Amino acid sequence: MSRPFLYRVRVRYADVDRMGVVYHSRYIEWFEAARTEMLREMGMPYKQLEDRGFLLPVIEVNCQYRSPARYDEVVEIRTAMKGVTRLKIELVYEARNHESAAVLAEGRTLHCFTNPGGRPVRADPSIIDFFKKIQAQSG
Amino acid sequence: MSRPFLYRVRVRYADVDRMGVVYHSRYIEWFEAARTEMLREMGMPYKQLEDRGFLLPVIEVNCQYRSPARYDEVVEIRTAMKGVTRLKIELVYEARNHESAAVLAEGRTLHCFTNPGGRPVRADPSIIDFFKKIQAQSG
Amino acid sequence: MSRPFLYRVRVRYADVDRMGVVYHSRYIEWFEAARTEMLREMGMPYKQLEDRGFLLPVIEVNCQYRSPARYDEVVEIRTAMKGVTRLKIELVYEARNHESAAVLAEGRTLHCFTNPGGRPVRADPSIIDFFKKIQAQSG
Amino acid sequence: MSRPFLYRVRVRYADVDRMGVVYHSRYIEWFEAARTEMLREMGMPYKQLEDRGFLLPVIEVNCQYRSPARYDEVVEIRTAMKGVTRLKIELVYEARNHESAAVLAEGRTLHCFTNPGGRPVRADPSIIDFFKKIQAQSG
Repeated sequence: MSRPFLYRVRVRYADVDRMGVVYHSRYIEWFEAARTEMLREMGMPYKQLEDRGFLLPVIEVNCQYRSPARYDEVVEIRTAMKGVTRLKIELVYEARNHESAAVLAEGRTLHCFTNPGGRPVRADPSIIDFFKKIQAQSG
Repeated sequence: MSRPFLYRVRVRYADVDRMGVVYHSRYIEWFEAARTEMLREMGMPYKQLEDRGFLLPVIEVNCQYRSPARYDEVVEIRTAMKGVTRLKIELVYEARNHESAAVLAEGRTLHCFTNPGGRPVRADPSIIDFFKKIQAQSG
Repeated sequence: MSRPFLYRVRVRYADVDRMGVVYHSRYIEWFEAARTEMLREMGMPYKQLEDRGFLLPVIEVNCQYRSPARYDEVVEIRTAMKGVTRLKIELVYEARNHESAAVLAEGRTLHCFTNPGGRPVRADPSIIDFFKKIQAQSG
Repeated sequence: MSRPFLYRVRVRYADVDRMGVVYHSRYIEWFEAARTEMLREMGMPYKQLEDRGFLLPVIEVNCQYRSPARYDEVVEIRTAMKGVTRLKIELVYEARNHESAAVLAEGRTLHCFTNPGGRPVRADPSIIDFFKKIQAQSG
């Protein structure tokens, strides 16, 4: 059973380059906002995860650009949990033009669990369960 | 015969997040600066390429994060041209801590040639030759 | 009669520096988003203004920082049109923590009207009327 | 006796907006880089100041935009220490096109001394002396 995790952002002046299209690294920042909202919607804001002693730094990011987004358009990002282990999680993202539904970009981020000092650790079972629940809903 | 194309950047306050490490999307921006300087060093600034009617938008980006960079450190990015066809070019990047030489991140960008209107085109042979020359030197 | 123009933004990881507080230039970008939404609410998106041949570049910006905003907090910016002439407009901004209502920053931007080539021009009376109407409501 | 503190930066793709000119908040970030390099040149990097227990958050920023900077141009920022007290320092900045010497922007930042917890404090006499020395040279 699939539940869409959607994050919307309007393209601002600061986001576009001189070709009038969204600068490519901006999507990487939007992906961060999108997954943050997904965690919040599911009941455990990222800040709470940090308070429990677990960070989730990005260890890999990929993005494929399909068509350009322009100033003032609304971009909608759909986020899904793709994989969960005790060491890592994998998320995928699809950015679309909210109006036309044209695919703008597709991305993927890989994260490991670390302690506050940045050392890789195994996540608590309760945290794994939480991410597995997201995976079941967003798959 | 290999020639290193090196770009150095000092980590600023605006570049690091609350963990004190460089925010992950920043590398993607530095890669852009690094390839721009490579083109300039080789005698054809990107602006000149645009003036000749060719743009090189990013169509794919990947980055793997190896170890964190911190405030005020100097990051050195080595750029190499990995592949050149009439339609696309591929570049790879290695970011290191300038002092310790520790690898911080490894990246890759794929670009296509387009006209100023954003339509994919085949590049002129003279432009291909230029990129092949970079490839021969940076390989 | 006063109408509040409010813009809300959640502080993201990319927005805070290593002290865990919002990097100071970020407010300047949020002010841009806030005034853009004000124009949209009033019925003339900035894009439409551009289509009519008028740009509104920032010619001066000021910001005073009162207290720090932190990761994941919601910042609410209240925007008001302070002054309107045929040559320039002046806006003021107040950023507050949405929950505590603590003032975070107060800003001001001054803009001139230019044509698409960047040359200062006098705005059309209909455009002046539009901005005067915003001023009357937001004062 | 005046000594110029100069910081140069090349305008990148990510720095310009759809009008092809540098996005206005970018100067605020460059000012930060410029004053950081000034401190380093004078022998006390900002990091060292932090290690001694003093932070210098921005409490006010102003910027007046004189003429636009464009993609790939080199911007040169001249920084000067304008005022020093035990509680605050004031810096001024002038950004010019490196080639034409045209003034692009003029700015000013006001900073207070705080402890690592963000509480305003009086700086040590030795630190005040250091800033007074910069003031004498850059005035």
